[in-house]
Amino acid sequence: MSACPNTADTLTAAATAEPLPVLGRDVTVPLVTGGEVTYAALDYAASAPALQRVWDDVAAYAPYYGSVHRGAGYLSQLSTDLFENSRRTVAEFLGCRPDDQVVFTRSTTDSLNLLAAVAPADCQVFVFETEHHASLLPWRDAQVTYLNAPRSPAEAVSTLERALDVRAGRGPALVCVTGASNVTGELWPVRELAAAAHARGARIVLDAAQLAPHHAVDIAGLDVDWVAFSGHKLYAPFGSGVLAGRADWLRDGEPYLAGGGASRRVARRADGGVDVDWHTTAARHEAGSPNVIGAYAIASACTALTEAGFDALAAREQRLVRRVREGLAEVPEVRVLSLFGDDAPRVGVLSFVVEGWNSSHFAAALSAEYGIGVRDGLFCAHPLLRTLLGSGPQEPGECGAPEAGPGERSLNAIRVSFGAGTPDEHVERFVRAVQELVSDGARWNYRTEDGRCVPDRETTAVA
Amino acid sequence: MSACPNTADTLTAAATAEPLPVLGRDVTVPLVTGGEVTYAALDYAASAPALQRVWDDVAAYAPYYGSVHRGAGYLSQLSTDLFENSRRTVAEFLGCRPDDQVVFTRSTTDSLNLLAAVAPADCQVFVFETEHHASLLPWRDAQVTYLNAPRSPAEAVSTLERALDVRAGRGPALVCVTGASNVTGELWPVRELAAAAHARGARIVLDAAQLAPHHAVDIAGLDVDWVAFSGHKLYAPFGSGVLAGRADWLRDGEPYLAGGGASRRVARRADGGVDVDWHTTAARHEAGSPNVIGAYAIASACTALTEAGFDALAAREQRLVRRVREGLAEVPEVRVLSLFGDDAPRVGVLSFVVEGWNSSHFAAALSAEYGIGVRDGLFCAHPLLRTLLGSGPQEPGECGAPEAGPGERSLNAIRVSFGAGTPDEHVERFVRAVQELVSDGARWNYRTEDGRCVPDRETTAVA
Repeated sequence: MSACPNTADTLTAAATAEPLPVLGRDVTVPLVTGGEVTYAALDYAASAPALQRVWDDVAAYAPYYGSVHRGAGYLSQLSTDLFENSRRTVAEFLGCRPDDQVVFTRSTTDSLNLLAAVAPADCQVFVFETEHHASLLPWRDAQVTYLNAPRSPAEAVSTLERALDVRAGRGPALVCVTGASNVTGELWPVRELAAAAHARGARIVLDAAQLAPHHAVDIAGLDVDWVAFSGHKLYAPFGSGVLAGRADWLRDGEPYLAGGGASRRVARRADGGVDVDWHTTAARHEAGSPNVIGAYAIASACTALTEAGFDALAAREQRLVRRVREGLAEVPEVRVLSLFGDDAPRVGVLSFVVEGWNSSHFAAALSAEYGIGVRDGLFCAHPLLRTLLGSGPQEPGECGAPEAGPGERSLNAIRVSFGAGTPDEHVERFVRAVQELVSDGARWNYRTEDGRCVPDRETTAVA
Repeated sequence: MSACPNTADTLTAAATAEPLPVLGRDVTVPLVTGGEVTYAALDYAASAPALQRVWDDVAAYAPYYGSVHRGAGYLSQLSTDLFENSRRTVAEFLGCRPDDQVVFTRSTTDSLNLLAAVAPADCQVFVFETEHHASLLPWRDAQVTYLNAPRSPAEAVSTLERALDVRAGRGPALVCVTGASNVTGELWPVRELAAAAHARGARIVLDAAQLAPHHAVDIAGLDVDWVAFSGHKLYAPFGSGVLAGRADWLRDGEPYLAGGGASRRVARRADGGVDVDWHTTAARHEAGSPNVIGAYAIASACTALTEAGFDALAAREQRLVRRVREGLAEVPEVRVLSLFGDDAPRVGVLSFVVEGWNSSHFAAALSAEYGIGVRDGLFCAHPLLRTLLGSGPQEPGECGAPEAGPGERSLNAIRVSFGAGTPDEHVERFVRAVQELVSDGARWNYRTEDGRCVPDRETTAVA
C-alpha cells in the first residue's frame, strides 16, 4: 500500500510518542525463576488489550444500557441512538461511500461468512492460499479458485490478473484479500488488486482484521467493495465486528440470521405457512438484540485511534518494528518469515523460527522466564505456514498446536505482534529475551501438558 | 411447568427480600413535566440491566484479558481457562448431561439458527405460531409445521401429540418451544411437551430466553434435547448467548461459521482446492476469536443467580406479578393478554392494551411523565399478537412499530417486564401511572417522530 508510512520522512517526532493507555498495562505476572514482572502483551495480532479510553466509555455507558429498537423508555431510546450513532462512527472511520451499509457482526470471521452467504450463487471467488482461514474457508468449495502464494506485491497483482482473465463466463466474481498478513505483517497491494479486480468485472473484499488497528483504512480511497474487521483486534474486545460496503448483495441476499429485528412483518399464510417481509437495511443481517456494548466499544476505538492519528501511531510502531528486526537480525539462529522480502512494508506483526528450537518451547520460555506473551503455532493460516516454513503438510493437534515436544525440530513458528499500547520496554525485553534464550538456553525444563508447553514444576532450574 | 413456584407455599420470607443490585439502579432521567426521577427499567424481557456482580467480575477480569486458545503468554492461558471454565459453569447452571455440548453463540436467535443449520436435512420441525420470531423463522420453510395457538397447556400438549402422530415417515423431527412466552410471560408445559415429543421419536429444543432469567432450567430434569438462551436477558449484556445440549447433530452438522478455531487442519489438495479437518467439539461452531468477556459475563450471572437462589428470586418476582395484576385489574379499560387464562403461571412479563389508547402513546407517556421504560409493539411475535389482539393482519412499519398516531385505535400492545433487579417502587410507580393515565389522561401532547412516539416539545402541557 503506497500510503504505508515506512519511509524516513514519516518518522517524525511522533515516533517517540508515548503508547496509548491500555487496560492491563500494570498487570504483573509470576516468573518461574522467581519474582514478578509487568506482563508484556505481544500477541496483539490475536487479540489486543482494550484501550483505556474504550473501557472508560463502556463503563460510563453501562449504567445507561437499555433494550434497543422498540423500547419506549428513556434508556432504550438512548441505547438505540448510541447503537445507530456507532454505526455512523464506523462508517466515517472507514471512509464509507454514502450508499454503503455497515453491518455489526461478531468478528471478521463472521463478517466474511456473512458476505459468503449473500454472494450470488454463481459467484466465483478468488483467494490467495496465503490468507487466514477466516478468508480462506467461508466460500462454497465449488466456487473458489485458490491462488498460489506470490513472492512480491507485483506478483500478487499479476497472479490475480491472470486468474481473472481466464475465468469462465462473465458472471459475478469476488476477490478476498488481506490488508496485512496475520503471519508476516506484510502489507498487500490492496489498491492495485482492487483496480485489477474492477477492471475485470470482479468485486473485492478487504480483510482488514490486521490492517485496521495499525493503519487508516479508506474504503472509497482504496476502492474496495467491502471491508471486514474485528473489535477485539482494534482494542475493543466486546464481541463485535464489522462488515461494511456495497449494499446490493447485502440487500438482495437471504437474511444471515432469521429472527426478530431482521423481520419487518410476519404473518400466517392461508396454507398454514408463514410469510416474512425482511428488512433491506443492515438490520436484515442483525437479527436478535444487537450487541450494543460491542458496537459502541468499536466506535469508541475508532474515535480514539482517529484522534491519536494513524500517522503518529504508525510512525511509532514502525520504530518498534525496526527495533525488533534489528534485534532479531543479530541472532543468526533466527529466521524471520517473509513472503515479500526483508524490505517489504509491514505492520507490527512478525513471525520467526529459531534454529534448534521447538517454537512452542521457545514461546513457553518467553512467557515463563520473561513475562512475555507471544503466540506459537500455525496462526490459522496453515497453507501459508507450510510455504513459509518450507516443510510438507503437518498435522498439529489443534489450530497451531505443537505435536513435537521441547527440543525437537520446529514444526510451527513464533509470532510477536504489537500496536498502539505497546511500550518500548516490551519490545526491548523481547529482543533481549530472544538473544539470551538462544545464547544461554532456557533456565527451566518444560513439558507438554494438556496440549500446552509449560514449565515442569517437578524439576528445578536447568542450571 | 410443575416446578413453577406459583403457590402460596413457596411465598416465603424471601418474597420480601431486596432486589439484586443492578447497574443503573440510581440513574435518573428527566420528565417532560419537569424534574427528574430514577429510571424504572421495566423492559427486562427485551434486555435486562447487568447485575452489579456481573459488571464487577467483568471489570476485575478486563485488565487480564488476553488472546485465547493458542497464545503462549500468561494472560492468554488465564483467558483460555476462564473461557473454558465459563462453559463448565453454564453446563452446571443448566444441569447438562455429561455428553452435552455448550456452544457460545451471540444470542438465542443465533443459537436457534445454529440448531436449524445442523439439523438433518430431512428433519421435520414443529413449532407453535405463538413463538417469538427467533423460534419461528430459522427453519427451512419446507420442513416446518406451524401449530395453531393453544388455549391451555393441556391443549398445547394434545396439539403437539396430534401433529406428531400424523407426521409423514419416521425421519428426524424437532419440536421448538418457548419456556415462557415473551409476550404473556405464561409458562409452557415443557416437561410434558418433551415427553410427548420423545414418545413419538422427536427431539425438542427449549427456547429459554424468557425462562432462564426467572427460573431454574434443568435440561436433564425437563428431558429436553437442547436449551437456548441469551446473556443480555440474563443480566449479562456482552453479546453472548448459549446453545447447550445433545452433541450428535452439533458434531455431524456443517460448521456454523467457517474459519480459524473451528478448523483443525487445512491443506491444499493436489487439484488446487483445500481439505479441511473440522473440530468435533463446541469449537466446531465457534470459529473466530471467542467473545471471552461475553462468555464470562454469562457464567458470572449463572453463578450469581444460583447463589441468590431461584426459589427466593421467583417468590419475590411472583409477589411483584401479583401486585401488577391486582393494580391493572382495578382499571376496567386495561385488558391483560393471555393465552392460557388469568390463573396461568407466568414469569414477570405481562402485555396489555388500554381501551381508547394507542399503545405507543401510552408507553411514551409512561416514559416521559413517569420515567418508566416499557415496550410497545408486536414484540417480534406477530402471529401471537394477532391472535391475542383479535385483529386481522397488521402492517407495522418496523418490528412492532406503530402505524397509528396518538389517540387512534390500538394496533399494538404494551409490555411490562421485570426481574431480579426490580425494586418494589418501580412496580408501584407503574401501577399508579397506569391508573392516573387512564383516569386523568396524559399531561402532555405527543407526536410521531422518526417512528417514535415522543412528547411534542413545541406545545405545552395538555392541561
